Amino acid sequence: MGVSDTPTLDKHLSRQQETRTPVVAKNKDLLILTYGALVAQLCKDYEKEEDVNKYLDKMGYGIGTRLVEDFLARSSLRRCHSYSEVTHIIAEVAFKMYLGVTPSVTCKNSSRNEFSLILDKTPLSEFVEMLPAGRSSLCYCSLLCGIIRGALEMVHLAADVTFLQDKLKGDSVTEIGITFLKQPEEKKYRWKQ
Amino acid sequence: MGVSDTPTLDKHLSRQQETRTPVVAKNKDLLILTYGALVAQLCKDYEKEEDVNKYLDKMGYGIGTRLVEDFLARSSLRRCHSYSEVTHIIAEVAFKMYLGVTPSVTCKNSSRNEFSLILDKTPLSEFVEMLPAGRSSLCYCSLLCGIIRGALEMVHLAADVTFLQDKLKGDSVTEIGITFLKQPEEKKYRWKQ
Repeated sequence: MGVSDTPTLDKHLSRQQETRTPVVAKNKDLLILTYGALVAQLCKDYEKEEDVNKYLDKMGYGIGTRLVEDFLARSSLRRCHSYSEVTHIIAEVAFKMYLGVTPSVTCKNSSRNEFSLILDKTPLSEFVEMLPAGRSSLCYCSLLCGIIRGALEMVHLAADVTFLQDKLKGDSVTEIGITFLKQPEEKKYRWKQ
Repeated sequence: MGVSDTPTLDKHLSRQQETRTPVVAKNKDLLILTYGALVAQLCKDYEKEEDVNKYLDKMGYGIGTRLVEDFLARSSLRRCHSYSEVTHIIAEVAFKMYLGVTPSVTCKNSSRNEFSLILDKTPLSEFVEMLPAGRSSLCYCSLLCGIIRGALEMVHLAADVTFLQDKLKGDSVTEIGITFLKQPEEKKYRWKQ
């Protein structure tokens, strides 16, 4: 029996080549489980769920400020010309790229600076069905709000990003609200130079 | 300007379709950054790096026991007939699937129960170049050892899994050692029923 005696493996690899199983986002489960471990750790560390939410948001902010470089490099996007366009890119390019889901976008006000991303399920929480009774204030996916806020700030767009609805809390959908705080300078803010 | 006025986005999506940019493992960066946030949090919580290492390993164990189900479902593997085969599957199927890298495998002893996975870089730490001087005992990727240990235990294979070399600590490669602890029952342990 040698190291190279791997009939099952060979068979598997050959089958994989034959069927071209898509390997897209397969590490999503590892991400979801690692994120779960992070949230569980913070719940141990902080008594109040509000503090866990804040901490996750702050962590997400740091991740967003770094992830945006990667995102811009991969997506080769040019300037956006409206908040609507920016929000669509977050939903249809960034969410799809990193989480494998595409939220729908709605505009919430006539001045067109408030948008919602609507999701049928809450990303990062696929293995969490419902928050336990004692954790009703926990905003499990606060990291996402921080990531969006951090990434937007790096392209000079200040925004408030919060969960407005959460399926984990019994709402019918998950809704992330993005409120852009400033008008773009000369209406030509840059998504990328 | 309507919500659907997204010329840059349309252009991007159409270009993406044209060039068929591979979207494989794009969320790896999100995983790496989330993992970094987890390690940073644990370093704040625990004074001794050994405790951080243990905690990461324990967390990884929990993740491994859950991830293995997903892995078996996706990979459609059947029984393995040797420790060598199991190790090759970890390296060439599981690592590739979840981390986008394929370690090389070496067998370390004549009884063929000790193997090493050799990597040119340490997964989960692509944004970490070197551990800071005060953190020399930190085994940054201990989570991986725990994951492998947890996953193997779920298929009734007890193993010790540790980092033997680590590029983050100045070694020339990263080496994860796997020592299988028991002979398979009737030499027919099951990777999957």
